[in-house]
Amino acid sequence: MDSSSSSHGIEQLQQGCYYEWMSLQAKHIVNLKEALINQQSNNDDHHKLEELVGVVVDDFQKYAEKRSELSDRSCSSYFAPSWNSSLENGLLWMGGCRPSSFIRVIYALCGSQTETQYSQYLQKMDESEKVDESAGIMSELTAMQLAKINEVHIKVIEKEDKITKKYAHMQEDVADMPIAVTAYSRDLVEVGVSVEDALDKHEEGMGVLMAEADKLRIETLRKIVEIMTPVQAAEFLLAGKRLHVSLHEWGRVREERRFGCARADAVAGGAGVGSEKSKRSTTC
Amino acid sequence: MDSSSSSHGIEQLQQGCYYEWMSLQAKHIVNLKEALINQQSNNDDHHKLEELVGVVVDDFQKYAEKRSELSDRSCSSYFAPSWNSSLENGLLWMGGCRPSSFIRVIYALCGSQTETQYSQYLQKMDESEKVDESAGIMSELTAMQLAKINEVHIKVIEKEDKITKKYAHMQEDVADMPIAVTAYSRDLVEVGVSVEDALDKHEEGMGVLMAEADKLRIETLRKIVEIMTPVQAAEFLLAGKRLHVSLHEWGRVREERRFGCARADAVAGGAGVGSEKSKRSTTC
Repeated sequence: MDSSSSSHGIEQLQQGCYYEWMSLQAKHIVNLKEALINQQSNNDDHHKLEELVGVVVDDFQKYAEKRSELSDRSCSSYFAPSWNSSLENGLLWMGGCRPSSFIRVIYALCGSQTETQYSQYLQKMDESEKVDESAGIMSELTAMQLAKINEVHIKVIEKEDKITKKYAHMQEDVADMPIAVTAYSRDLVEVGVSVEDALDKHEEGMGVLMAEADKLRIETLRKIVEIMTPVQAAEFLLAGKRLHVSLHEWGRVREERRFGCARADAVAGGAGVGSEKSKRSTTC
Repeated sequence: MDSSSSSHGIEQLQQGCYYEWMSLQAKHIVNLKEALINQQSNNDDHHKLEELVGVVVDDFQKYAEKRSELSDRSCSSYFAPSWNSSLENGLLWMGGCRPSSFIRVIYALCGSQTETQYSQYLQKMDESEKVDESAGIMSELTAMQLAKINEVHIKVIEKEDKITKKYAHMQEDVADMPIAVTAYSRDLVEVGVSVEDALDKHEEGMGVLMAEADKLRIETLRKIVEIMTPVQAAEFLLAGKRLHVSLHEWGRVREERRFGCARADAVAGGAGVGSEKSKRSTTC
């Protein structure tokens, strides 16, 4: 793709913003991992971890604000971005992850850590071997913490449902005037002013919903982090980011295999995550 | 894109299937229009129209069956296809249109036709001019027909909501084991066998939901057509197809403007709708 001819397109700016965010997430992963290791050797150093958790959540908010600024009248790109694989787009909800999936991450972490600790305990009993006891402390969430998280889960699902319903109405409205009536009247219709205005308005509406969903995502993250200890919060954020980056990569690999070659949406100036492989190529 | 190297990919087959369907829809538009004009000059010839309406609905069912066969373990492509614009993908529900939007098409047609007839009536009164009185008979839907359509609408929305909820659960499940736990454990993870299996299973689940949604789409179409006279049904199908084709084209034009150039997903052997413009080009 000739980036000089396309660098001014709004979608290029959106894509750039996304890759900056992915690049920042890669840094967050490194920082969170380091901070968790440091905390293990210096058990009282919770303050630094707390600060980092705050920075990570704030950065998510900044990203949401930045992409909201770029969504004006071209928000639909965020609902199924060309820079994502179909797998990832199939998982999107209002241009991002479901806030309720944050809570599923916690439950999954709890379960897997309990399982690991149990098998390590058995191993210790059988073989009197030294095993790693520091693998995660999410399983140490108290009953009180779990009850609070469950409360957040229920409220989040309710709010998600409300936004989903608004979106359904918006989708239905497209079959209404003036878009529909213009389409019904002729066979292949040029994009006239009235249709353009209606589609702009539709995309503006999508932007409002995405902002509402982003607000719910951030609000949910903050509530979870408040309930947790700094170590638990750092583990949770690290897990969420690893899941996001992995799904992005796995989806890309599966898609390449299906296409037989890479699709064309090379990142003009954007920073890929992990490796050069993350950037799709125009050539097959 | 070198089509020889990619023609065996499953997504190419899916894309080919889609463009065949779009090409068939273009033919349906021509046939429905001709049949409606013929019916005007020979008012009793309802039989041919009825037959055509049946063919159009059956063809939609055949398309749904064909794409379902191609969806095995790679269904996510249908949830945000690369051959659609973001605008169109933002309007998708389970890989297609919302069945409830069929009913919105009817209501919009009723409204616009009533408006046209009213303004024509006023024009006639004022200027004693001969105006076209044959512009649509959707406004002649009886109260009984409208009540039945309203009943279908309510049931369809209920069924849509159920499918939407199943999809939400499926999306949340991805944050669970084994996908999530694999992702949590390392930084950038190779797609291992257990993850591949889990993602295949996830896509199979999406395929089941899409088939369920397609069943609802076809069922809704059949119910609507049963309630209507053949002329009304033909008008309704014509309007729906024009809306689909127009949105595909409008979305493409808007996206091209945003990108500054066309995205690369040229159709290998697929038939575009309307004109060469419908086929996206690899070159900028």
